[in-house]
Amino acid sequence: MTPGELSLLLARAYLLRVAEPPAPALTRFVVEHGAERAAEAVRGGRVPGDVAKEVAARNDLRLAEQDLQTGHAMGARLLVPEHEQWPRQRFADFEHAAQNGVQNAAPPLALWVRGSPRLAESTASAVSVVGSRAASGYGEQLAAEFGHGLVGRGFTVVSGAAYGIDGAAHRGALAGGGTTVAVLACGLDVGYPAGHTSLLRAVESGDGAVLSEYPPGTPPARHRFLVRNRLIAALSAGTVVVEAGRRSGARNTAGIAGGLGRVVMAVPGPVTSALSAGCHELLRDGEALLVTSTAEIAEAAGPMGDHLISPGDRPSRDTDGLGEEELRVFEALDLRKGAAADEVSVRSGVELASVRAILPVLEFAGLAARGEYGWTRRRRRSGRS
Amino acid sequence: MTPGELSLLLARAYLLRVAEPPAPALTRFVVEHGAERAAEAVRGGRVPGDVAKEVAARNDLRLAEQDLQTGHAMGARLLVPEHEQWPRQRFADFEHAAQNGVQNAAPPLALWVRGSPRLAESTASAVSVVGSRAASGYGEQLAAEFGHGLVGRGFTVVSGAAYGIDGAAHRGALAGGGTTVAVLACGLDVGYPAGHTSLLRAVESGDGAVLSEYPPGTPPARHRFLVRNRLIAALSAGTVVVEAGRRSGARNTAGIAGGLGRVVMAVPGPVTSALSAGCHELLRDGEALLVTSTAEIAEAAGPMGDHLISPGDRPSRDTDGLGEEELRVFEALDLRKGAAADEVSVRSGVELASVRAILPVLEFAGLAARGEYGWTRRRRRSGRS
Repeated sequence: MTPGELSLLLARAYLLRVAEPPAPALTRFVVEHGAERAAEAVRGGRVPGDVAKEVAARNDLRLAEQDLQTGHAMGARLLVPEHEQWPRQRFADFEHAAQNGVQNAAPPLALWVRGSPRLAESTASAVSVVGSRAASGYGEQLAAEFGHGLVGRGFTVVSGAAYGIDGAAHRGALAGGGTTVAVLACGLDVGYPAGHTSLLRAVESGDGAVLSEYPPGTPPARHRFLVRNRLIAALSAGTVVVEAGRRSGARNTAGIAGGLGRVVMAVPGPVTSALSAGCHELLRDGEALLVTSTAEIAEAAGPMGDHLISPGDRPSRDTDGLGEEELRVFEALDLRKGAAADEVSVRSGVELASVRAILPVLEFAGLAARGEYGWTRRRRRSGRS
Repeated sequence: MTPGELSLLLARAYLLRVAEPPAPALTRFVVEHGAERAAEAVRGGRVPGDVAKEVAARNDLRLAEQDLQTGHAMGARLLVPEHEQWPRQRFADFEHAAQNGVQNAAPPLALWVRGSPRLAESTASAVSVVGSRAASGYGEQLAAEFGHGLVGRGFTVVSGAAYGIDGAAHRGALAGGGTTVAVLACGLDVGYPAGHTSLLRAVESGDGAVLSEYPPGTPPARHRFLVRNRLIAALSAGTVVVEAGRRSGARNTAGIAGGLGRVVMAVPGPVTSALSAGCHELLRDGEALLVTSTAEIAEAAGPMGDHLISPGDRPSRDTDGLGEEELRVFEALDLRKGAAADEVSVRSGVELASVRAILPVLEFAGLAARGEYGWTRRRRRSGRS
């Protein structure tokens, strides 16, 4: 590491320390002056009023040097906006969203990363899968299935490492041998949630990563989850809400994703389940697209034209090509009991002459059979649902 | 009955006999010439080619007199478009729909009715509840709940008397002491479905009715179900699909309802259930509004402005009125472990001076408590989902 690089890291680590994210005024100040000059100005108290307001409550905090040492000791790196692997394209939409009044629409000042720091690459094609902590078996099963299916289609799966839906999505992605990224609402060393320590270790392996904009030691807090959610939304092309109560954080993530112009998707569930009520509200309000399968998610979130569901993916039925009269004749036939043409005519309301012409056509198509006791219906395969 | 009235009934009963519904050319011919002159022309073979094509296969059938006798014997009446209780407003939309190419968009030539013939009244405020025959317990439970809830809100519940969703909707309406209307795809004397004979008897009681445009003795057939579905759609202001496979008749009813400009609604369910796949497709395709409760159905299908869900129907939470900083301070408080103001400031990222001002506000709102060991959070009731 060159002295210049170290100086940049120190400045960024310091900036992460001096304000509670998101700090839009400070972020703008840093963009304007560069990280090192901005950090110096903050240290010296020489910042405009709006920046000063954001940094005011953070004067008693440890030094950036210590964070870099702690980070190094725990195998974490500080990924900075000046780095080529900074996902700048993903974060670029914050600017537009902020102009549109989207809450918390500011990029992070830097990101603590454990695992692969190649974030620009891993999030180039990514979907976030989010939902309730107190998920049902239904929700967890789907989240795991989507995680597995999405990595199989080349997507990175982004989530928040929480219990319930998040954890299931990460696990599904790992089971599929794919890349998954977890964004935390606390320092990487905090070990939250406690039961997911080994899951996070698995996420960090391979091309995956665990991220946080919070310095080492920062405890989780509810407003941090909401602030963190903007990163989950921003780091993916689309967000799928698998299960969410009416007031859940996942709905918040969906709202930010919508504000960033991302594809917002929601999975329906039983209307009797409070865990699907948030999804149903998103769908009723027209804020989300209804998805029921990995194929539908991939179609919606993939690059335009990729992952299109071909019409063949929908079950077809033998009678799809029939005209109205042909269908009426077909429907007038019984699977077992034979009928003469005139009987079929009366049943179907189709003229006898037409019935006599149509029956051999159906026979040729394998839909009707001529037997000893008259015409019967044949079904090559079940098309009924 | 005057001789004129009898003559009209005979003409209409005859017209129901001579063509398989829907018979749009014959229907137009009847509107143009009146029922009696049209019937005479059909008998004499003096009809235009398009009408002749519709009536061709029906020359071997019994006489209208016999139908009127059979109808009388089974307690059924023939309701004709000339009657004041003909639901002409409901059927008026067929004309517009036919111009837009909606399939089967023709009103019935008459309706056989058992129960109350006051159809214009009973269908003035009506919702149809439809779905799969092979419904799940989930679907049947919801259909019954909606049937019950809708009659409680003054709606008539229209359905098709089939096993599964239809039957549950009728039963729910009856249990709620309300009016329900069943539209059959066969003659009223056919006794189909066999297991619903006593249900149909119950439907006919009070202000309810069982209807069919098919003459006595007409057996059910698949194309008749599709044709019948247009009447279910037309007789109600909105259609709710509770459960439907991808190719179900209920989806067909929904399609016609949409073509008639009616409100189309679908109930979501587990994506793992093939019985909800049709509902999810309707929702994905933007053809239906997602509904999860009777209140939502009533709001969508009721007269404009009636049945609006008040904001109070949605669960509110104690913190709804809080500003961003107040919320951050509130979230920084623990339910058990007390914290001093400066600690709360660091946790929340809110300036100490502001925290000192906000804490008493939260205390006054019953959201925070000042104790021996500092500030704690108070929760008046659970608002979490």
